[in-house]
Amino acid sequence: MSAIAFDHPFLSGLLGDEETAAYFSGEADIRAMLQFEAALARAQAAHDIIPLAAAETISSACASFAPDIGSLRTATARDGVVIPELVRQLRAAAGEAGTQVHIGATSQDVIDTSLMLRLKPVAFVFAAHLTAIEVRLAELHQTFGSRPLMGRTRMQAAIPITVADRLRAWRNPFDGYREKLTELRFPLQFGGAAGILEKFGGKAAAVRSSLAQELGLADLPQWQSQRGIIAEFANLLALISGSLGKFGQDIALMAQAGDEIALSGGGGSSAMAHKQNPVAAETLVALARFNATQISAIHQSMIHEQERSGAAWTLEWLVLPQMAIATGAALRLARELANNINRLGAVNP
Amino acid sequence: MSAIAFDHPFLSGLLGDEETAAYFSGEADIRAMLQFEAALARAQAAHDIIPLAAAETISSACASFAPDIGSLRTATARDGVVIPELVRQLRAAAGEAGTQVHIGATSQDVIDTSLMLRLKPVAFVFAAHLTAIEVRLAELHQTFGSRPLMGRTRMQAAIPITVADRLRAWRNPFDGYREKLTELRFPLQFGGAAGILEKFGGKAAAVRSSLAQELGLADLPQWQSQRGIIAEFANLLALISGSLGKFGQDIALMAQAGDEIALSGGGGSSAMAHKQNPVAAETLVALARFNATQISAIHQSMIHEQERSGAAWTLEWLVLPQMAIATGAALRLARELANNINRLGAVNP
Amino acid sequence: MSAIAFDHPFLSGLLGDEETAAYFSGEADIRAMLQFEAALARAQAAHDIIPLAAAETISSACASFAPDIGSLRTATARDGVVIPELVRQLRAAAGEAGTQVHIGATSQDVIDTSLMLRLKPVAFVFAAHLTAIEVRLAELHQTFGSRPLMGRTRMQAAIPITVADRLRAWRNPFDGYREKLTELRFPLQFGGAAGILEKFGGKAAAVRSSLAQELGLADLPQWQSQRGIIAEFANLLALISGSLGKFGQDIALMAQAGDEIALSGGGGSSAMAHKQNPVAAETLVALARFNATQISAIHQSMIHEQERSGAAWTLEWLVLPQMAIATGAALRLARELANNINRLGAVNP
Amino acid sequence: MSAIAFDHPFLSGLLGDEETAAYFSGEADIRAMLQFEAALARAQAAHDIIPLAAAETISSACASFAPDIGSLRTATARDGVVIPELVRQLRAAAGEAGTQVHIGATSQDVIDTSLMLRLKPVAFVFAAHLTAIEVRLAELHQTFGSRPLMGRTRMQAAIPITVADRLRAWRNPFDGYREKLTELRFPLQFGGAAGILEKFGGKAAAVRSSLAQELGLADLPQWQSQRGIIAEFANLLALISGSLGKFGQDIALMAQAGDEIALSGGGGSSAMAHKQNPVAAETLVALARFNATQISAIHQSMIHEQERSGAAWTLEWLVLPQMAIATGAALRLARELANNINRLGAVNP
Repeated sequence: MSAIAFDHPFLSGLLGDEETAAYFSGEADIRAMLQFEAALARAQAAHDIIPLAAAETISSACASFAPDIGSLRTATARDGVVIPELVRQLRAAAGEAGTQVHIGATSQDVIDTSLMLRLKPVAFVFAAHLTAIEVRLAELHQTFGSRPLMGRTRMQAAIPITVADRLRAWRNPFDGYREKLTELRFPLQFGGAAGILEKFGGKAAAVRSSLAQELGLADLPQWQSQRGIIAEFANLLALISGSLGKFGQDIALMAQAGDEIALSGGGGSSAMAHKQNPVAAETLVALARFNATQISAIHQSMIHEQERSGAAWTLEWLVLPQMAIATGAALRLARELANNINRLGAVNP
Repeated sequence: MSAIAFDHPFLSGLLGDEETAAYFSGEADIRAMLQFEAALARAQAAHDIIPLAAAETISSACASFAPDIGSLRTATARDGVVIPELVRQLRAAAGEAGTQVHIGATSQDVIDTSLMLRLKPVAFVFAAHLTAIEVRLAELHQTFGSRPLMGRTRMQAAIPITVADRLRAWRNPFDGYREKLTELRFPLQFGGAAGILEKFGGKAAAVRSSLAQELGLADLPQWQSQRGIIAEFANLLALISGSLGKFGQDIALMAQAGDEIALSGGGGSSAMAHKQNPVAAETLVALARFNATQISAIHQSMIHEQERSGAAWTLEWLVLPQMAIATGAALRLARELANNINRLGAVNP
Repeated sequence: MSAIAFDHPFLSGLLGDEETAAYFSGEADIRAMLQFEAALARAQAAHDIIPLAAAETISSACASFAPDIGSLRTATARDGVVIPELVRQLRAAAGEAGTQVHIGATSQDVIDTSLMLRLKPVAFVFAAHLTAIEVRLAELHQTFGSRPLMGRTRMQAAIPITVADRLRAWRNPFDGYREKLTELRFPLQFGGAAGILEKFGGKAAAVRSSLAQELGLADLPQWQSQRGIIAEFANLLALISGSLGKFGQDIALMAQAGDEIALSGGGGSSAMAHKQNPVAAETLVALARFNATQISAIHQSMIHEQERSGAAWTLEWLVLPQMAIATGAALRLARELANNINRLGAVNP
Repeated sequence: MSAIAFDHPFLSGLLGDEETAAYFSGEADIRAMLQFEAALARAQAAHDIIPLAAAETISSACASFAPDIGSLRTATARDGVVIPELVRQLRAAAGEAGTQVHIGATSQDVIDTSLMLRLKPVAFVFAAHLTAIEVRLAELHQTFGSRPLMGRTRMQAAIPITVADRLRAWRNPFDGYREKLTELRFPLQFGGAAGILEKFGGKAAAVRSSLAQELGLADLPQWQSQRGIIAEFANLLALISGSLGKFGQDIALMAQAGDEIALSGGGGSSAMAHKQNPVAAETLVALARFNATQISAIHQSMIHEQERSGAAWTLEWLVLPQMAIATGAALRLARELANNINRLGAVNP
């Protein structure tokens, strides 16, 4: 049973997001890593670095191979990365072609590329969530947009606005986020032992290009010690959860004001049967502040030492999956919350 | 399979800590929550608020009761807290005494107190780790303390010092941490619906005192919206992992310098058979920077609204268990790393 | 005498950046605020909201007006914003046209727009710094690129690379940053009391468009409670200082290795005459970690309440100017440091 | 004119605190540094390391000496620390005794000790503020404590409490903070070039002890690379501002509710003459979130490399003074805000 809220036996019902978490499971990671090794073998065969037959054997092995997770765990504890042991197991599984596995690649190539292979669909999932929330907010706009609402600035009644004005402030940022999610380039990471693909001589660029194409990733020079790509993605996650946090904060304040909103699906209290707590709204605030905290670690991990930093890289592993899951959870909750809004604006305006 | 590094099928071998994580499992949490409900019933019986027989029935029910986790998860998603559903199930399990369960208490009382019941042994586990590390550093001091070492300041050779001097800087903070870990007061949280124990009239203070005694916790006024107690503990965690991060950083730099240390147990590389990476040392740096990030969220969650903030409280749940597990992992790794030091100071001084 | 390092009588020599700080001085802010008020008057005259003569008088008053700073300070302490008092003073200075000043606008319109008017040239200054650093790194590439360098991964010697490979990792991110700096849109903020420009009826969009054109800013709907624009800029600042921090960290490690670099301009020690400390390199790391911390506050301030949050907005004021100055200082120091590199790679390769 | 809010020509009226800032001015720092150099000379004379006459000359020079600030600034930019140049100037000012200045000490000894000499009175100033706030809250308790107030949990009306209950939650943490502020030990830092006081042989401990006594600081072994002392103080600052942030947040919510509080001294709006914004309350939230962010940098700077880290130490300089000033500002504002509360609880309860 997991101790972390996102995976916790009962807290994950509130704070987790199964759809997003699936992309960060050990299983999904291994699947993507094997996808890398298979594509690498094919790319190398295409450039006559390994025999085509070996590449086919490796591809088949990767497709059917089920690693010994216990050994992976022990080896990760020792090596700091899972790859040496995974490659050892895969080589054994690939029989005679085993010597052709993982040629010229290093752990970071596999791990960073596996991440990109999984962030790419995550971005599309998130874009779809944003669309769904927008559609629902547009419905609310349609139904309640013309109702008056007290505009509030600096925690004080200001001047009357309409429900449509409040809705506009919630929706405005979404288009930009969706655009970024769908236009982001997810690049291959491929550098070998120290970033220079020294095993491939004049074929390095061509192998990298083929590998990128095999994997459906962008072909960029190695970025193993240049983590802006990670930071950009993390920033986008925090922007999304931040805007949803603003939405949640507003709903919670409207619920406190009492007559500005009607919500269903609110939470029960163990002490007060009469209460309906705006749980999803508060949770959106918590998740936004969580991501606003985590983004700091991602930027700390920009400071890579030399050709590869074990410390900075490991810090990313501790933080990025959580930011993605927190964002997934925020999107899921925002959808639910938007659907649970039965009325915006006063009953008798 | 968990998506978070601390619980991950293979990353947890490096980054997790089973001993600490056990205290933050859903199971441990539920056990402590039931301990609260049982103690509450007994304390109320002692003050003639509920019949003694009911208290005994509730105690028995709490001892043997196995909740339906699936329902807890669904209910937590709805209510934002697990308690309403847990209490509902417990009441059913307690039969006729069920109406006497959880009287005058609220979700936060149970959840915060459960946390304190578990942080208390965690603190002792951590103190024991610190002792073990100190013992090992004292051995190293004994064996290698008189060897010369180049003192380095601002990333430059400064003047010769001894291995003992370096060891002293590593060990110095530990005594203070151990003292704090063993002297910390872990208080009961007990306030009822809005912090005023309104159900107990003149008996409130006496019930609280009995309840604290039953649970072996300190008897303090409710602190439900005053989270300094959490922040103090989190700060101590970050101090411990921070000092261990300094230790790890130094070991990694000594390993880079080459002749200042001999380490066993280092990590292998998938690209370079000759390398021995100081994996534990780097991971200590990553865990220190992780906790240095998380402490910010804990301080953000000091800003509780009114009598109870769902948002600020939930933010704690997302962060504190991870800080504890990261600290446990850092202590475990620092012990291993200290044990893997085969030599400090130059071979031929 | 200022207490903050960036403005400190002696620390600012190391940590400050006069060029960037100038854009965040009270004087520059007031100048840009008056630019807003003048442009607003002209835009309103163009749409027959105020008489042209009044607009001209206001424009002249804005050009020559020197506010009473002491009163601005006192009033800011009371009002939380400088604008009510600044407008009061400006109205007095504008004589009969005074009643036509600041019509339909609110404090946030002036303050946010003033920020944009100043961030825009700051972005160009930073882009120019990046170009200068790149030019110098290209020179170093030309001179020392072919020299061998020990590639280091995870704090250990890995395989030999060349100086050119290390230089490439430093330079790679710069093009993307420069592109973003020069392509960013800096938008007008204009919403009035609660974001709906209620004073302008059907002319609202036209006035906003004219105002944006007058000020050379992008014409976007009000973003007063949607702070992604600020967070995007802050993220770019942290990316830049982060990559420069990686550069600094590498230089400091090369200086520690001893034979990999020759640096001039290093710092003296009060205790050891023989030392040359790589001060600029270390300071780049400190500034990167500073910005990696601050970005968290910017994301926390995404959670605006309702139509305008005093708390979240004020938090931005505390952090964003510092991030910009820290980035400016990092760029200045990175230029100096690059210029002080006399050799890269071993003396006798 | 300063660009940073705490020192800004008009923002500092709201966000600065002159009383606290005075302890972090360059002037106060230099004064404390000279106090260190004078005390060092006297301590060395007491142990026959330098002649008594030289110590007296140095003491006199320190008392009357006014350094050339421009040169200090230039030298700090070069050396990363002010001390080499300050000592050079002081030696010149001390004439023949100049050679006896700063013997066996290093920059960090002077800078860290100067900080402790100033944090000590800051702690007393803060304790006095806390007392004043408590006295005012006790008055409010006396006057309005018995009035009913709606207890609110999770942003929803819960059960009726009294004004006294709310006041208790605000006041509870203060006693503990005051106790810590007045009981904290502020230690001398004294280690010499690399922490081993190598210039003093067997007299090292005695000189350190005398020096601590001269300065009224605690006598502890050097802590130059062990920054828990700084982190503990910073944590206390964040706790104080955090609790005041909770107070501010509650006041802002009470002001929004409308009938729960009467406040004077609120802020004016440039767009709405009728508004009274709870500016001080919102600013308390902003300052709390500011410090909750900064504490992360302080914990990042726990990871000192080897005997002294330029990078980690410089990061402290960028952050700690700001945390102290933010805390001073929060205390000042909380006092003002408490004094501006004219009523708590409903008008006609």
